[in-house]
Amino acid sequence: MSTVKILSDDQISIAAKNILDDIKNTRKTEYINNFWRVLANNPETLKRTWESMKQIMGEGAIDQKTKEMIYLAVSVAHNCPYCIHSHTVAAKNKGMSEDEYNELIAIIGMASETNRLATALGIPIDDCYLV
Amino acid sequence: MSTVKILSDDQISIAAKNILDDIKNTRKTEYINNFWRVLANNPETLKRTWESMKQIMGEGAIDQKTKEMIYLAVSVAHNCPYCIHSHTVAAKNKGMSEDEYNELIAIIGMASETNRLATALGIPIDDCYLV
Amino acid sequence: MSTVKILSDDQISIAAKNILDDIKNTRKTEYINNFWRVLANNPETLKRTWESMKQIMGEGAIDQKTKEMIYLAVSVAHNCPYCIHSHTVAAKNKGMSEDEYNELIAIIGMASETNRLATALGIPIDDCYLV
Amino acid sequence: MSTVKILSDDQISIAAKNILDDIKNTRKTEYINNFWRVLANNPETLKRTWESMKQIMGEGAIDQKTKEMIYLAVSVAHNCPYCIHSHTVAAKNKGMSEDEYNELIAIIGMASETNRLATALGIPIDDCYLV
Amino acid sequence: MSTVKILSDDQISIAAKNILDDIKNTRKTEYINNFWRVLANNPETLKRTWESMKQIMGEGAIDQKTKEMIYLAVSVAHNCPYCIHSHTVAAKNKGMSEDEYNELIAIIGMASETNRLATALGIPIDDCYLV
Amino acid sequence: MSTVKILSDDQISIAAKNILDDIKNTRKTEYINNFWRVLANNPETLKRTWESMKQIMGEGAIDQKTKEMIYLAVSVAHNCPYCIHSHTVAAKNKGMSEDEYNELIAIIGMASETNRLATALGIPIDDCYLV
Repeated sequence: MSTVKILSDDQISIAAKNILDDIKNTRKTEYINNFWRVLANNPETLKRTWESMKQIMGEGAIDQKTKEMIYLAVSVAHNCPYCIHSHTVAAKNKGMSEDEYNELIAIIGMASETNRLATALGIPIDDCYLV
Repeated sequence: MSTVKILSDDQISIAAKNILDDIKNTRKTEYINNFWRVLANNPETLKRTWESMKQIMGEGAIDQKTKEMIYLAVSVAHNCPYCIHSHTVAAKNKGMSEDEYNELIAIIGMASETNRLATALGIPIDDCYLV
Repeated sequence: MSTVKILSDDQISIAAKNILDDIKNTRKTEYINNFWRVLANNPETLKRTWESMKQIMGEGAIDQKTKEMIYLAVSVAHNCPYCIHSHTVAAKNKGMSEDEYNELIAIIGMASETNRLATALGIPIDDCYLV
Repeated sequence: MSTVKILSDDQISIAAKNILDDIKNTRKTEYINNFWRVLANNPETLKRTWESMKQIMGEGAIDQKTKEMIYLAVSVAHNCPYCIHSHTVAAKNKGMSEDEYNELIAIIGMASETNRLATALGIPIDDCYLV
Repeated sequence: MSTVKILSDDQISIAAKNILDDIKNTRKTEYINNFWRVLANNPETLKRTWESMKQIMGEGAIDQKTKEMIYLAVSVAHNCPYCIHSHTVAAKNKGMSEDEYNELIAIIGMASETNRLATALGIPIDDCYLV
Repeated sequence: MSTVKILSDDQISIAAKNILDDIKNTRKTEYINNFWRVLANNPETLKRTWESMKQIMGEGAIDQKTKEMIYLAVSVAHNCPYCIHSHTVAAKNKGMSEDEYNELIAIIGMASETNRLATALGIPIDDCYLV
């Protein structure tokens, strides 16, 4: 399905390989998933995307499990099957329980419903919600 | 902007009033925001929506602050200004800090970018992500 | 809010005026709403859009009230406040009752919820649904 | 593709089985499609979703064929292949003719085009459309 | 996956065949891709869609390579894998270089990120941007 | 409408001010639009977003006018009024003519229509489009 080639290890440029090595080190795994392997066709975008990802998804005020759950929620709303599959696995790897997953799915569905209800009805924003 | 009337207190039917009273009791507030006040035109949808909301957004495996942050993330991706404003306030009321908000916004932006990259590139789902 | 000018009657080109006259005749009204008045900046797009609209939204196998309700449903999912307002009015003008409107809104909300549930869960299409 | 397991009949919990039985009875069919079979992993969401579906999609002011066509229109705009396939079949089963289907598709396409035109041009809502 | 039949050459009506012949002549190719072959089930929509396409995507103020790149960008944001694949090929056929493709993908990703940031933050439009 | 404060010049932190100064220098203007002024609440996201923007939207294989037109097309599909207004102005400032703007709008509309037609019909990707 890919619109560009998925590079095998020996087709990857040195510039891209250095980024992929940093991904492996940061994630403590030898596995590079297709997303990064495809971006390796374009080392500049690979580098910028990975550096942003590393900064945003690392430790912070929000714990990493919750970050992955938020990422998954956005990916569902944007309808990206690749991202849904990879971040469902990532959230589980960070400790998301089955109960948490079930609640996450329910929240996404509920928000989708009320988002469209509010839009359909043209509901004006309450004054108390404005900064 | 509303496509239906925002009902004043004396225009609300008894059926709708009972639901609005349950909202007030559950949320421990006298304030009914425009979303529910507009839905009150349609008591059946008001009742079903509120009962789902109460079930899904109450206490559970995911804490209520995080639930509001996930709701907000979905609302941004669906582009619902009403929902964005109301759930930004709700998340803050449930304890979202400024650092958490900043990280949440960054995750939403990052996910949006990689969602479209993965879609543009038609990246196939890795076998290890399939159940 | 417009990114192009809303033309007053004396600023409209002859080519655009002919199309606007056909809109008035077809709709049996003197009122030209902002959508067409803005498109009048670009007579070629005005003409192509109106001719498609006239063909698609006229009498056919689906009655005109139902056509407007479908148009409204799509406009909600695409989040277009202009289209939501204008097609809510159009559907009412074609005879949509308050009960029908309430059911329409509920269907849009329900579909939005299950659309995202099915997407989140990556549900495979049943063989019996394939042509 | 599913991110959760599709349960075989003997893996379904009693709580879920009761809901699936109600689906079979209501729809007068022995066939349970994948959507409900996947939701059966999560009996609470299964129950809430089915009860809403039964209430909203049953007989009412809008006939069931038209309801399915509206559901399909929303599912296209939300880009849910599962929902598009299942509700295309459902609409046909409720009596949608080939001419009606062709018109439905044309309306969805037309609305999509004008939704984005109105958004691109920032067209202000006519005063006469405001409640 | 198709919800309607993909017609073989001998199943195509005369009305549809005439349009398909015009597509072949205009594009100087014998190949009819699945999009048009499926639309051939519905000659009226086939005709209207092709005539609009021919008018809009032909020579004009914007060169055809750039037109295909814009078409691809919209198709990514709308999440249409069919359109992404066909317009990636079309843009390459019109001369899009690998560097241009890489930049196009980066712009789509960047716009997606800032679109959601601006939406999340509810940023008011600067006065100087209003017409 | 903003969900965070729009900072006046004396409320901006040193870290944010340095980025805003780079924006002024790069763009050769004293004007800072609301997007960057709001992001200034969050210097880390401000810095990352601006650095990506500067890299992606600067000179390259695609000229800057075309880059702005692609950015605008994505912003319309994502329904971001702020981004639509600011990038319409930016594209004009980079030299987009009225004819080019009219064609751009028409392409966005056409793509939106065929994106949804292809999705509704579930059209399978032609083998010749696969890499």
